[in-house]
Amino acid sequence: MSLRLVFLGTGGSWPSKEAGVSALALRAPKQTLLFDCGEGTQRQLMFSSVSFMSITHIFITHFHGDHFLGLPGLIQSMSLNDRKKELVIVGPEGIEDLTKTLLGLGYFTLTFPIKVITAVPGEGVTAGEGEDGGLTITPFNVEHCVPGIGYAVEEPMRPGKFDKARALELGVPEGRLFSKLQKGEEVEVEGKKITPGMVMGPPRPGRKVIITGDTKYLDPPPEIWRNCDALVHEATFTKELEERAGEYGHSTAEQAAKSAKKVGAGILFLVHRSPRYKDPAILEEEAKAVFPNSYFPKDLEETDIPLRD
Amino acid sequence: MSLRLVFLGTGGSWPSKEAGVSALALRAPKQTLLFDCGEGTQRQLMFSSVSFMSITHIFITHFHGDHFLGLPGLIQSMSLNDRKKELVIVGPEGIEDLTKTLLGLGYFTLTFPIKVITAVPGEGVTAGEGEDGGLTITPFNVEHCVPGIGYAVEEPMRPGKFDKARALELGVPEGRLFSKLQKGEEVEVEGKKITPGMVMGPPRPGRKVIITGDTKYLDPPPEIWRNCDALVHEATFTKELEERAGEYGHSTAEQAAKSAKKVGAGILFLVHRSPRYKDPAILEEEAKAVFPNSYFPKDLEETDIPLRD
Repeated sequence: MSLRLVFLGTGGSWPSKEAGVSALALRAPKQTLLFDCGEGTQRQLMFSSVSFMSITHIFITHFHGDHFLGLPGLIQSMSLNDRKKELVIVGPEGIEDLTKTLLGLGYFTLTFPIKVITAVPGEGVTAGEGEDGGLTITPFNVEHCVPGIGYAVEEPMRPGKFDKARALELGVPEGRLFSKLQKGEEVEVEGKKITPGMVMGPPRPGRKVIITGDTKYLDPPPEIWRNCDALVHEATFTKELEERAGEYGHSTAEQAAKSAKKVGAGILFLVHRSPRYKDPAILEEEAKAVFPNSYFPKDLEETDIPLRD
Repeated sequence: MSLRLVFLGTGGSWPSKEAGVSALALRAPKQTLLFDCGEGTQRQLMFSSVSFMSITHIFITHFHGDHFLGLPGLIQSMSLNDRKKELVIVGPEGIEDLTKTLLGLGYFTLTFPIKVITAVPGEGVTAGEGEDGGLTITPFNVEHCVPGIGYAVEEPMRPGKFDKARALELGVPEGRLFSKLQKGEEVEVEGKKITPGMVMGPPRPGRKVIITGDTKYLDPPPEIWRNCDALVHEATFTKELEERAGEYGHSTAEQAAKSAKKVGAGILFLVHRSPRYKDPAILEEEAKAVFPNSYFPKDLEETDIPLRD
């Protein structure tokens, strides 16, 4: 299944010409998760491959305006477009009151149910089940100047690798029976039972994506970050401003890269640059020096997260 | 003095790729007035000639999200940029509670005083005095599906025309004494008193700009619209949808043009098109057929309102 990251807003604090404020979509085949929803997110969605109506879950990391002020407009536009499908909103302690307040702003009629979940670090929230995807999103604590959490998104375990040579050796003909075995079904070849276990390797973990939200450098990094396929880490400042970063509960690009290296991340995406950096290249370069597979995407860049073997 | 209209968001209901939601800035030399502040307005300002920090007054027409949901983000960004100067917010009954709610969203520290004024139709609000401009903004009632008001912006009276020939005839030499007379001061030429009244025509009215906000066709138009220099009128639909327009408290482009003609407007600017119209040309053409000096500006167009003789 495909997992696509859509960087809707890669700026922090306030929007600039170059970058909108925080929002990141994660598109799975049957679920679209939105992480943070700064002002302007609904319009950024219109310029992306994601339909704003397709969003199933919204996860808020903390209650600074640049991370949630796009919520009421998005919800009102969904209503004006007659959405019926439930929307799940997850956020730190206080998300129920905040959502209630946001739903009371001005005149509008909500056309769909909203389920609000207060995130509990370590307790996974499920998005979809079985054939609908079954992503698990687990909140973890971060350290910011206000209460904040990050989210780990994990796919379910994938079946092991299919050993084609072994299957042919056992007399299974290529075609329909191969696919039955790959789906976990037993087959019979010339009166002989062949079980999936005879031709499939051990189950492999699904992909894992970590979204930190705003946080100062976490050392050691949270255990759940280990071996993630993609680490989306805030990088508000360059290392020249490391002291300032610590003071305001933010990270430098170099610190983000150090964390990526420590946890063995597949790829590091930097986001949330201060409006002082018109071009993210300086932050990207700083991170690459520590962790070569580092990128600071521009707004509206999209990328598929590859499956590891 | 220059009066410039900056069309920040010319779309209605929800933003599209082509148009942001409602916001219009009016730039005078010492005051910057913002009419409505839909989501995304602070970023639109960054693409315009108007500094978001320079805004002195915000006028809200009604409490549909596409007209005010940009307020909290704008206020928070002003605070993050350490604004100290007072901001005046004017809006219909309920604006005090709404502002209070918006100021309570999430964590942030307000760095400047906000004065909230509940608009009373017919009672002008003054923006600046004397050399600071002295614009008067008078709310008027409109008819929308929720309580709404429009605003008439009026410049103070301008001095009359200077009669150069007459001044020379009276023996006033060109130069410093001309400018004294134009400023309303008495001068003496060869022992003879010359008063401004002897060389200046009668005072002329300043410019008047009408901003309707969302409204159905008002027939007859409000008296205060008469002889306005610019009428900024909503035009959500084309005339094919006139019935729908009436039902939802909106106007067609043709209706806006009829009003412009009736009141003798200098120029008609159409705004607030439904997201169904990707290109505003169809609405502009419809209006031009009734009132030739009609325009549907694109987002971020700016125009100076000329002085009439």
